[in-house]
Amino acid sequence: MTILEQARSGNITDVMKTIAHNEGVSPEQIRQAIADGNTVILNSRQPVAIGKKLITKVSASVGLYEKNDTIQGEMLKIKAALKAKTDTIMDLSVRGDIDDMRSTVLNSIDCPVGTLPLYQALHDAEEKYGSALKMTADDFFEVMEKQASEGVSFMALHCGTTMEVVKQAKEDHRIDPLVSYGGSHLIGWMIHNQCENFLFTQFDRVLSICHRYDVVLSFADGMRPGCIADSLDRPQVQEILILGNLVKRAREAGVQVMVKGPGHVPLDEIETTVKLQKKLCHDAPYFVFGCLPTDSAVSMDHISSAIGGAIASFYGADFLCIVTPAEHIGMPDADDVFTGVIASRIAAHAGDVAKGHPDAIAWDREMSVSRRELDWQHQIELSIDPETTERMWKERSSNFSSECSMCGDYCALKIVTKYLHDEREVI
Amino acid sequence: MTILEQARSGNITDVMKTIAHNEGVSPEQIRQAIADGNTVILNSRQPVAIGKKLITKVSASVGLYEKNDTIQGEMLKIKAALKAKTDTIMDLSVRGDIDDMRSTVLNSIDCPVGTLPLYQALHDAEEKYGSALKMTADDFFEVMEKQASEGVSFMALHCGTTMEVVKQAKEDHRIDPLVSYGGSHLIGWMIHNQCENFLFTQFDRVLSICHRYDVVLSFADGMRPGCIADSLDRPQVQEILILGNLVKRAREAGVQVMVKGPGHVPLDEIETTVKLQKKLCHDAPYFVFGCLPTDSAVSMDHISSAIGGAIASFYGADFLCIVTPAEHIGMPDADDVFTGVIASRIAAHAGDVAKGHPDAIAWDREMSVSRRELDWQHQIELSIDPETTERMWKERSSNFSSECSMCGDYCALKIVTKYLHDEREVI
Repeated sequence: MTILEQARSGNITDVMKTIAHNEGVSPEQIRQAIADGNTVILNSRQPVAIGKKLITKVSASVGLYEKNDTIQGEMLKIKAALKAKTDTIMDLSVRGDIDDMRSTVLNSIDCPVGTLPLYQALHDAEEKYGSALKMTADDFFEVMEKQASEGVSFMALHCGTTMEVVKQAKEDHRIDPLVSYGGSHLIGWMIHNQCENFLFTQFDRVLSICHRYDVVLSFADGMRPGCIADSLDRPQVQEILILGNLVKRAREAGVQVMVKGPGHVPLDEIETTVKLQKKLCHDAPYFVFGCLPTDSAVSMDHISSAIGGAIASFYGADFLCIVTPAEHIGMPDADDVFTGVIASRIAAHAGDVAKGHPDAIAWDREMSVSRRELDWQHQIELSIDPETTERMWKERSSNFSSECSMCGDYCALKIVTKYLHDEREVI
Repeated sequence: MTILEQARSGNITDVMKTIAHNEGVSPEQIRQAIADGNTVILNSRQPVAIGKKLITKVSASVGLYEKNDTIQGEMLKIKAALKAKTDTIMDLSVRGDIDDMRSTVLNSIDCPVGTLPLYQALHDAEEKYGSALKMTADDFFEVMEKQASEGVSFMALHCGTTMEVVKQAKEDHRIDPLVSYGGSHLIGWMIHNQCENFLFTQFDRVLSICHRYDVVLSFADGMRPGCIADSLDRPQVQEILILGNLVKRAREAGVQVMVKGPGHVPLDEIETTVKLQKKLCHDAPYFVFGCLPTDSAVSMDHISSAIGGAIASFYGADFLCIVTPAEHIGMPDADDVFTGVIASRIAAHAGDVAKGHPDAIAWDREMSVSRRELDWQHQIELSIDPETTERMWKERSSNFSSECSMCGDYCALKIVTKYLHDEREVI
């Protein structure tokens, strides 16, 4: 039985107990949330749950992409992502020794690993037939099953990117018609072969593999809006409608499912985007890329993404896909990945505070008390990026004679303590 | 006549015409907005307007603060802030040769300069009497008038931080009772001297100086919430109520006025914070510090602040005070100031896009078209931080043979062009 089937049968399994312990809720709450479909468990040696009322999680993507990318280089990015406390890693390799890369990742890290198996299927077809466009559906499912059997926790699949949706994108004259990398390749294949999306027509095969290996299905969005002007347009919403149906079919088949969304979304459309996605996809956990509330923050898109991600989290997004400063320019290096994870974690935490998650609120309160008490060591420990905080504090505090480096001789907090607190009787 | 009096008299002055030209609206719209009080003009060689329906502006703060701070060092920070395109500079010097610092700033830059004259008054009193606590109201007004006469455009004054408000803060048991630096010193003075706030009791003198030199009054908030838990509490709201009355008195006296607010605010309270402030302060332009939607992003508070600032801007904030990565740790260096301005400008722009400002929307659209057309030079020019974008692009693009550095050989946009656009007839 899959985790979902166990949950529906009323069984509380060991992994549910582990998750309940990590999340600070009861095992029965976790079981019920999985049974209801608003929460999924990405299973691994260090399982992670994504869903309603839980701490918002963060995912970092790496992979062999450029000709001179190496597994060693990608492992450095993973190390940076883990240091910044990402919850999961996606290996999105599109070339090179993809099998070796994936097995290295799966053997090296304990957290859940996700993949987008179409990339390897296209790469293998290019090697086998001389063109990715000659890939067959059977080729794809062979790759998918191989990856699933090796212990991949979740897979991104563009099951809802149908010909109907592609036609919508043509008719709607988007500014940036397609920016989803996997989606674009799939659509290229569909158009070239005059063939409907096999992930849609053969969805039962997708479900069968996910069921056999208890892989979480992560619907990818081929119609991800690539600019503010294209947000919440017909193709995007059409695809969500299709995915909503597929969510129901996945659940009926005993397969855990989550749905990925945006992209570029103006601030005033984030609430609608999240609520529509959750509503049409029957409360499936929402995995969001960004979102980016401006197109013009290139080289600083981790900041733009933190803005959109925080609001998305507040309105219900459960899982943030990091955006690095290199987005829209080139491939990120390890430092970019670190920065991207930290920015997304700030967004996730700000969302959790606003959602009223008790652990998030307690964390901020503890930090505030430490700040009042000038307990620098504890502030460093509690900070989202302790390493940078400690480095900056050491650099700056050496300029001060006072123990508090914030205000030097003029510390506002000391004045408050002296005048407001100690002399309470005076007023 | 002051700018406000001119506007009320129906006169469109040269500075209003300049502003109208810069903002892309009619001079009559600017005149009416000033007369209504929802917009102010910070006059200088390069005047800047802050207010409703205008592009959200950004202010960077510098000043002699540490014992070893130098005017030269502060000028480097100003240079960094201007390179990052701050709209205004605040000189918040608290020690050293404050007069020399201010005159250097006023002589060197064209944009509006703001000050917080209480700092110099306290410093002068410390030199004159051996203690800042011996400062008199007359001492303060002398400093204020000197600064106004030299061409300071706007002044931060804690006119609403009355004894009533301070008592509220005591009774409410805030976690961080006071974090406003100027506010804390003023309250220390009030408590020590058992004396009501002279900026409140002698508000007519404040207005008289602002009127004489046409300085914009920028109400500072002594009750700025210093942590999420203290947001929107009684002392904060009590102070806003008082400021609302003072806004009316300032306008009656022909003095332009804006109001400063938060601080630390959870995401779910930003809308209320902005709308309450605007409502109780009669639609006066809203100058916001941050806001910071988490307490735990220390060393990365420019990101936290960008999240809160964007949402505040969307809900109506008109002017963002930058927060640098060094906030809560120590004093910022020039790089920190640059980063803080860029982060705030991303927030401001994201807010403007969501508010539907036509220039902001056109800017993002142009960027999106440049992205689709792989026009890298134009993307660099249009980016909020062109220098970093160009540096990153040069670093990364050298790894690619293709002109597009985003996807290398696998460019999704090229696939779209090839399959979706060129072969439209095929489907």
